[in-house]
Amino acid sequence: MTLDSIGEDHLISKLTQLLHQRSDVIAGPGDDCAVLPLDSTHFLLLKTDAVVEGVHFLPDEAPERVGWKAVARVVSDIAAMGGTPQALVITLALRGDTDLAWAQQLYSGMQRCAAHHACSIVGGETTRAPDGCSQIISVAGTGRVPQDHLILRSTACIGDRIYVTGHLGGSLSGKHLDFFPRLAEARWLASHFRPTAMMDLSDGLAKDLPRLAILSNCGYQIDLASIPCQPGITTNSAIRDGEDYELLFCQLAHRSTDMELAWRTAFPDLPLTCIGEITEHTSAPLDGGWDHFHRSE
Amino acid sequence: MTLDSIGEDHLISKLTQLLHQRSDVIAGPGDDCAVLPLDSTHFLLLKTDAVVEGVHFLPDEAPERVGWKAVARVVSDIAAMGGTPQALVITLALRGDTDLAWAQQLYSGMQRCAAHHACSIVGGETTRAPDGCSQIISVAGTGRVPQDHLILRSTACIGDRIYVTGHLGGSLSGKHLDFFPRLAEARWLASHFRPTAMMDLSDGLAKDLPRLAILSNCGYQIDLASIPCQPGITTNSAIRDGEDYELLFCQLAHRSTDMELAWRTAFPDLPLTCIGEITEHTSAPLDGGWDHFHRSE
Repeated sequence: MTLDSIGEDHLISKLTQLLHQRSDVIAGPGDDCAVLPLDSTHFLLLKTDAVVEGVHFLPDEAPERVGWKAVARVVSDIAAMGGTPQALVITLALRGDTDLAWAQQLYSGMQRCAAHHACSIVGGETTRAPDGCSQIISVAGTGRVPQDHLILRSTACIGDRIYVTGHLGGSLSGKHLDFFPRLAEARWLASHFRPTAMMDLSDGLAKDLPRLAILSNCGYQIDLASIPCQPGITTNSAIRDGEDYELLFCQLAHRSTDMELAWRTAFPDLPLTCIGEITEHTSAPLDGGWDHFHRSE
Repeated sequence: MTLDSIGEDHLISKLTQLLHQRSDVIAGPGDDCAVLPLDSTHFLLLKTDAVVEGVHFLPDEAPERVGWKAVARVVSDIAAMGGTPQALVITLALRGDTDLAWAQQLYSGMQRCAAHHACSIVGGETTRAPDGCSQIISVAGTGRVPQDHLILRSTACIGDRIYVTGHLGGSLSGKHLDFFPRLAEARWLASHFRPTAMMDLSDGLAKDLPRLAILSNCGYQIDLASIPCQPGITTNSAIRDGEDYELLFCQLAHRSTDMELAWRTAFPDLPLTCIGEITEHTSAPLDGGWDHFHRSE
């Protein structure tokens, strides 16, 4: 049975079944980050991610933008837990015929994104990608989160309102390389209106919302007409394109109005949209979204 | 200027020049791990590493062994700082035509190595490697080290004795896949006879010792006849083959005899060999060792 025939989520499920966690692991595989003990007030967050040439970026893409994206994806995951990024380590698999200037511009983009989010690239590993093979940039990062600000994917409750930030879809026109992770917004939420559950949208709402619902042992009901689409993008594309890097979160119904009001003052330029509700069962499941090992078309 | 024409150390030097560290980073790029603040008594260690098909393992290698190696390399780096591994995250770039069983056996090997060293695989990311491209397993890990047990590469002093554990060379016959990181040995050293400097031998003594010496702003003098070679391996190969995953460390001359005596009681089956001395200048530099981007032959 090949990976192409089983799909990404099934693969991950098969692999994580093999793992055993130490008793001090607060949250292991399945969320945006792993959660580990740090000190009496904070948890440590740990995340790894990669961008692959030909999958996450094209060979002729500006390396500065590729570097920005590689780091921003990890920052986005740390943000989605309510945390703050601290330190990053980079694994590069580069071909020997790559120009030094390309590698330097890639690193400049990574450094610029790290500095913008007040974290440091503290080390890395450089290895050879065989001739003709895709280059890969793998980024691992740590973050910290006050214990009472931690937000998991698995804790949504029936009756919660479902929200997304920004506009969805159309990321391939450029946003997938130049996006700003919703770090400030996520920290504001964690401090003021802590969501019941949260994740970042990387594979598309149609792929990511079911993951959150399954982990929370709930269903969902989405009002498709309410989905905030990028200009010129259909709802169909908005929920399936992926790489939005917006926040998807759930909020207690009775706090929703206050939160929406306060949000408009705090972030007047970024829309916050209620797109549905957490339910016991899902009557109209979303379908599609990005899967590395199982194309839906 | 291509990466092949400049070599790995020069590439890393060019890339790390672009980085700026936060003031709370205790040690950034250049050592086996980065060192970050943790609590009042311990530091946090952070490391990333990767194994690449066709570079670090052959396509027909047993995936269990590949997985063991991928994790053991990171454990070895954490050990070399005097630390204890805690949590690992895994990035897999796999081809779509890879068999699920291969991926499961790979993960079994990683889990077995993690469990053997009392640490947990707490998360990961799975992405597609384009058809025909090498598969890559990137492992990032955290560890912790009591502040007074931390051992850097950069703190050797003139007059220190230089030691290696085990036998060097010949790793391609199998050791490079099945090695046991010197975790217990490194912790014993840190507790009882804290070395002045330490690292693990991954690219060969001829490549790694000069790195330690340069970072410590010293030279070295090696007695080639004293180098402990694997049976059937020449001294020339022993210092250049790479992937020994033994400890290379420096010890104050006046503590050497006591340490050697105590070592023989603590680890009767593992040789500890004094191979030379840290000097002001290097009169007979070692040459060769593994370089991903600059073949010495």
